[in-house]
Amino acid sequence: MTETKFDVVGIGNAIVDVLAHCTEEDLARLNLVKNSMTLIDAETADSLYAQMGPGLEMSGGSAGNTMAGIAALGGKGAYIGKVRDDQLGQVFRHDIRATGIAFDTAPATLGAPTARCLIFVTPDGHRTMNTFLGACVELGPDDIDAQLIAASRVIYMEGYLWDREDAKNAFIKAAQIAHEAGRQVSISLSDSFCVDRHRASFRDLVHNHIDVLFANEEEIKSLYEVDSFDAALAEVRRHCKVAALTRSEKGAVIVSDDEIHIIAAEPVDRVVDSTGAGDLFASGFLYGYTKGFELAQCGRLGAICAAEVISHMGARPDADLKELMQKSLNV
Amino acid sequence: MTETKFDVVGIGNAIVDVLAHCTEEDLARLNLVKNSMTLIDAETADSLYAQMGPGLEMSGGSAGNTMAGIAALGGKGAYIGKVRDDQLGQVFRHDIRATGIAFDTAPATLGAPTARCLIFVTPDGHRTMNTFLGACVELGPDDIDAQLIAASRVIYMEGYLWDREDAKNAFIKAAQIAHEAGRQVSISLSDSFCVDRHRASFRDLVHNHIDVLFANEEEIKSLYEVDSFDAALAEVRRHCKVAALTRSEKGAVIVSDDEIHIIAAEPVDRVVDSTGAGDLFASGFLYGYTKGFELAQCGRLGAICAAEVISHMGARPDADLKELMQKSLNV
Repeated sequence: MTETKFDVVGIGNAIVDVLAHCTEEDLARLNLVKNSMTLIDAETADSLYAQMGPGLEMSGGSAGNTMAGIAALGGKGAYIGKVRDDQLGQVFRHDIRATGIAFDTAPATLGAPTARCLIFVTPDGHRTMNTFLGACVELGPDDIDAQLIAASRVIYMEGYLWDREDAKNAFIKAAQIAHEAGRQVSISLSDSFCVDRHRASFRDLVHNHIDVLFANEEEIKSLYEVDSFDAALAEVRRHCKVAALTRSEKGAVIVSDDEIHIIAAEPVDRVVDSTGAGDLFASGFLYGYTKGFELAQCGRLGAICAAEVISHMGARPDADLKELMQKSLNV
Repeated sequence: MTETKFDVVGIGNAIVDVLAHCTEEDLARLNLVKNSMTLIDAETADSLYAQMGPGLEMSGGSAGNTMAGIAALGGKGAYIGKVRDDQLGQVFRHDIRATGIAFDTAPATLGAPTARCLIFVTPDGHRTMNTFLGACVELGPDDIDAQLIAASRVIYMEGYLWDREDAKNAFIKAAQIAHEAGRQVSISLSDSFCVDRHRASFRDLVHNHIDVLFANEEEIKSLYEVDSFDAALAEVRRHCKVAALTRSEKGAVIVSDDEIHIIAAEPVDRVVDSTGAGDLFASGFLYGYTKGFELAQCGRLGAICAAEVISHMGARPDADLKELMQKSLNV
């Protein structure tokens, strides 16, 4: 086996988030579907931005957030994603490297600018996302560094990549390299609307290429077109080695063969901004998983990281996750 | 007199802030002078950014922050400042307009990019700023819209402009237009090192062009080269119609002819980031001043706005300042 250099390598849409507070009335007026992620074109991005309040810019992207969390816990990671050679691209590159994550994907030198996600945060802390993919559409199989993949215990991909054929092919290439090198492959289903768009393809992926699956309740129900969480659970355990299913304030369920763990949500004083909850759950879980923690501990660590990120604006950790982990898990 | 369209027009360096947490050891290692504002060139900006933690981008600029605060209180304002036609310039323009402030200064289409201020925030909430002025150096007398100036009750300028001859000339032009139109002129001294750099010129300005002066304790002591706040106070009251002198946790002193008011600082649970404290004091004071509040009330409102901005990251208000004002002052 190739020498292990990284715990996790993440592959995702490299996005800078623009966060602003808004009211429920603003969502209605702007015809936004609360809690969803909608893909928008450049023109819509401009007109929506013009109607948005003063913003806060922070690097984001689902897998990017997960990798930042893994680095904050002390894990070693790398990231593959596409920015343009513009100012927001520099911001993204700086921020992920500053967390300690290796990021060497070449930027696009032509075409659309670095991706932006316009995130509207309502007073209840829920986030509604509008993503202009920009330069992310340039990510393809050529960006997959085979040596990097083979040197990582687990590769992790966000389901959002499925919205682009080239990105999907990039991931399948990465999954094959990983498995040939004896590594494991994980994915987050990202968004129930994204699952709706690509259900057959996702099922094929999950059943044939995935060792560790992350999904929330809506996503896993959508994947199997069932109405209850329990029915979805029965389906998924027949197919995946490990599934980590998150349920917001109801906590999470981790299932693997005959093993099943019910994880309580970590208490939070006030949900300020739910952006990144699923991403940071994956950080905690994957960190524990690559360090050989028991599955229940992996789930607990996921819940702790998710609770931290929803207690402030932005989808990357603010507090010292390593310290939180040591306090809560005695590790 | 021209019809009054605006309460305040602000003139300043149009800057996007990049904020990151750091330790006291980081400041020492990077040779940064705590609590100061240092001007840096493009090369230093790049190397310092590379050594900075993951950042949070927010529109800033001293006078820009003050104007955002005035808008949040319900005041009508306009802003004059120079960005480039780049992504960060778009962020700046969007954010100040989204607060409700008119901003129509033409962007530079050539030359340096939009200004950035790299702000290192230590655990005690103090901020250390490193400013790459970028496109701000293009601001000059041609950017002063005479109609706009003549239509504003008060013009407000940040002392930082004094670091550039063209910007200084722009301000003097604006001050002359304002006075000819029967308006008032105010300035913040911005930074004691900035006062050190331009003492003679600042004294001439303050004594001949300024109706309302904002300064903190270090700045006013530097202006008059005296060791005590009391000695500085004795000097300044001989020269300015109104002086609003801020003293951090000791509150503020407002002086005008024989009138003198000692304003207590507004209590804050925890100082998270002191960036913008002086800027937001000026927001509250100027809002009150243009609405005809008594000077003590103007000072109180300044203290309330300053307390809000230091209780979170970033130099622009987060909470509803109008509500805070109504609760605290019964207006």
